[in-house]
Amino acid sequence: MILISNPDKSQWQEILKRPVMNTENLFDTVRSVIDRVKAEGDRAVLDYEEKFDKVVLASLAVLEEEQQEAENLVSEDLKAAIRLAKQNIETFHAAQRFEGKKVQTQPGVTCWQKAVAIEKVGLYIPGGTAPLFSTVLMLAVPARIAGCKEIVLCTPPGRDGKVHPAVLFAAKVAGVNRIFKAGGIQAIAAMAYGTESVPKVYKIFGPGNQYVTAAKQLVSLRDVAIDMPAGPSEVEVLADETANPVFVAADLLSQAEHGVDSQAILITTSVELQQAVKVEVERQLALLPRKEIAEKSLANSKLIVVDSMKEAIELTNAYAPEHLIIETKDYLSLAERIVNAGSVFLGSLTPESAGDYASGTNHTLPTNGYAKAYSGVSLDSFIRKITFQEIKPEGLNIIGPAIELMAANEQLDAHKNAVSVRLGQLENEN
Amino acid sequence: MILISNPDKSQWQEILKRPVMNTENLFDTVRSVIDRVKAEGDRAVLDYEEKFDKVVLASLAVLEEEQQEAENLVSEDLKAAIRLAKQNIETFHAAQRFEGKKVQTQPGVTCWQKAVAIEKVGLYIPGGTAPLFSTVLMLAVPARIAGCKEIVLCTPPGRDGKVHPAVLFAAKVAGVNRIFKAGGIQAIAAMAYGTESVPKVYKIFGPGNQYVTAAKQLVSLRDVAIDMPAGPSEVEVLADETANPVFVAADLLSQAEHGVDSQAILITTSVELQQAVKVEVERQLALLPRKEIAEKSLANSKLIVVDSMKEAIELTNAYAPEHLIIETKDYLSLAERIVNAGSVFLGSLTPESAGDYASGTNHTLPTNGYAKAYSGVSLDSFIRKITFQEIKPEGLNIIGPAIELMAANEQLDAHKNAVSVRLGQLENEN
Repeated sequence: MILISNPDKSQWQEILKRPVMNTENLFDTVRSVIDRVKAEGDRAVLDYEEKFDKVVLASLAVLEEEQQEAENLVSEDLKAAIRLAKQNIETFHAAQRFEGKKVQTQPGVTCWQKAVAIEKVGLYIPGGTAPLFSTVLMLAVPARIAGCKEIVLCTPPGRDGKVHPAVLFAAKVAGVNRIFKAGGIQAIAAMAYGTESVPKVYKIFGPGNQYVTAAKQLVSLRDVAIDMPAGPSEVEVLADETANPVFVAADLLSQAEHGVDSQAILITTSVELQQAVKVEVERQLALLPRKEIAEKSLANSKLIVVDSMKEAIELTNAYAPEHLIIETKDYLSLAERIVNAGSVFLGSLTPESAGDYASGTNHTLPTNGYAKAYSGVSLDSFIRKITFQEIKPEGLNIIGPAIELMAANEQLDAHKNAVSVRLGQLENEN
Repeated sequence: MILISNPDKSQWQEILKRPVMNTENLFDTVRSVIDRVKAEGDRAVLDYEEKFDKVVLASLAVLEEEQQEAENLVSEDLKAAIRLAKQNIETFHAAQRFEGKKVQTQPGVTCWQKAVAIEKVGLYIPGGTAPLFSTVLMLAVPARIAGCKEIVLCTPPGRDGKVHPAVLFAAKVAGVNRIFKAGGIQAIAAMAYGTESVPKVYKIFGPGNQYVTAAKQLVSLRDVAIDMPAGPSEVEVLADETANPVFVAADLLSQAEHGVDSQAILITTSVELQQAVKVEVERQLALLPRKEIAEKSLANSKLIVVDSMKEAIELTNAYAPEHLIIETKDYLSLAERIVNAGSVFLGSLTPESAGDYASGTNHTLPTNGYAKAYSGVSLDSFIRKITFQEIKPEGLNIIGPAIELMAANEQLDAHKNAVSVRLGQLENEN
């Protein structure tokens, strides 16, 4: 860990620097896989599964019997936990439903927005040692609430050709329609263009490695929407002298264990806390199974002391953390001053893990400073707002002449004419 | 125009085909301009203005005196029209303000969303013969309502080194902070990375040619958000036998005059209307100043007769038009069945031009079928929704054990531990 005290503003940029990601240099490799999937469909996906995931599959679709078998393999305790998390995610996202109101911008000019679900969405769940069933809930539950008709999930199988039972159980609980055994670039390509088995979708969600990220970027240039740009996960803890160093250390470590490029930052007004957290992180680290990963990530982790809470807030907004934990005495009023963050955790009993799993908020969030421009996944991510308008004679008489004049000045006479022919008829009728 | 009658569903894909856009083959050229602007700042932008826009500028910023001069050059009539349009856009977008509600997902677990404006946004307004002051309003008015602190506008100057007065006037009315004379790739790069004059922004909005589109795509891979993918503009008119062919023809032509790759489509249940519209388009076309452009675009335009309104709706949703005009007797109930469209215009007195200029809705809309996954620009485009959560002892006791179990099953023990240390303390306190 790097201890920093009262950095000058000129150093901020350097201190807050994140690992540089460059997926563009993967584009050629990735494009070739995408093109083959686009051209050859299932055959190509099956081949790539053999090549990259080292598994020979008879078919891509997860069968009903596999789903049933999985359900028997998940412990009742874990099932109950998944159901509780699902219920809270549902409660929070259902409250985000959009009700458009009709707005009369002028007498006889009525405009409104209506939320409509994206009809087909694709969810990508990475493989690897840890089964990310929590991400299944975070993506499929809001998709279902939004009213998406087709919710497709792709995830790479293990070498035994099976999908982790907890992933299958979470998918069932959350209402995923169809699950396919496909990972990496080939999964993204299959959902972007469709194959004999995998339906084409209109928007793709979910985390993944740099190849998955590059594939999502490439298909999103023209063919399908994606949730948001990806980057390594990160947490900032903003704390004063009232914070519990044991909690702060645990929160920093919960980020550090994600991966060697994870970022964990403490910004505090208390030198004592900075020191205590350092000691406590080292103590807790020694006990962790993922100690090696966390250790590497912590090498870049910063514990920063600043002069005032005002400066702490400014530094926080400059960093724009994906996750921000505020452990101070007046956390609610400080929260009001946060303008750049993905998700904010308030008070000493609100660890990031709560939002990662079960409090109800979404854990798919903008990282890498993207919080300055992007929101996390929410119900909004699964809908579009279509605008509607209806104009009556009174309304056209009010705004018609302005439209004619503006269109003429933009040298778009046919635009003008579309109003003129109508105003002409209204005049004739009188 | 191409007349089509009762097409078989197998032909739909071919009939609804749009012009293929490939901006990826411009990436190398575009990247070299971006890289130079990133490295050399204003100097590079000024050089490219000389090279591409054929104008030697002393500085990029539009000065207060230029702004003042412009105001004197715009007619009072046009000023009044711009102000009326601004007022309606403001009314409609102000009604979109988001009020997050606090949601208790469990006793002691409170979660909410808060809308926060994107602090710095960049608006791009293309140059060319027609000054797109309407687009200035469509982007700057919601940015201002959202509360964006820095609203930067870039637009290429004419060969006289000046920005069109109507663009400057609209920018002033709408509340743009700073205007720069820069076009094309160099403008996008300047806003994405900042130069000595042009501030770096977090999100870039606005239309442009294929180079602008490619530049927006490239910078959005890593460095800045963009409004949405671009494509040629398009309209679909959905009409029955009650529609006025004069109006329908005027609406199709108002799209066709945009550019040779614009799409204008009629879908109707009435053969008589199809015929009448064909005749009427030809009659009106002859009178248009932009006749040559419209003529080329109309060569690909389709007038399609289908068997039933049910089929018409299905075909419409498959096409996902940017603009959809419904001129039928029961337009309100048909509107309920539209799931894929950018903006819908209802009834015989609601031409697309109304939404293009002055009814209050936004005219920056998803084209090229993107309406299946994207919304048009709205107040949402200028904000982020940050999630907040606060957990009390009662809440952590309810969800804590589920979090511990889920984290352990995802092999993230530090995540589990962040809850365990807190539950441990709660137990000690009792």
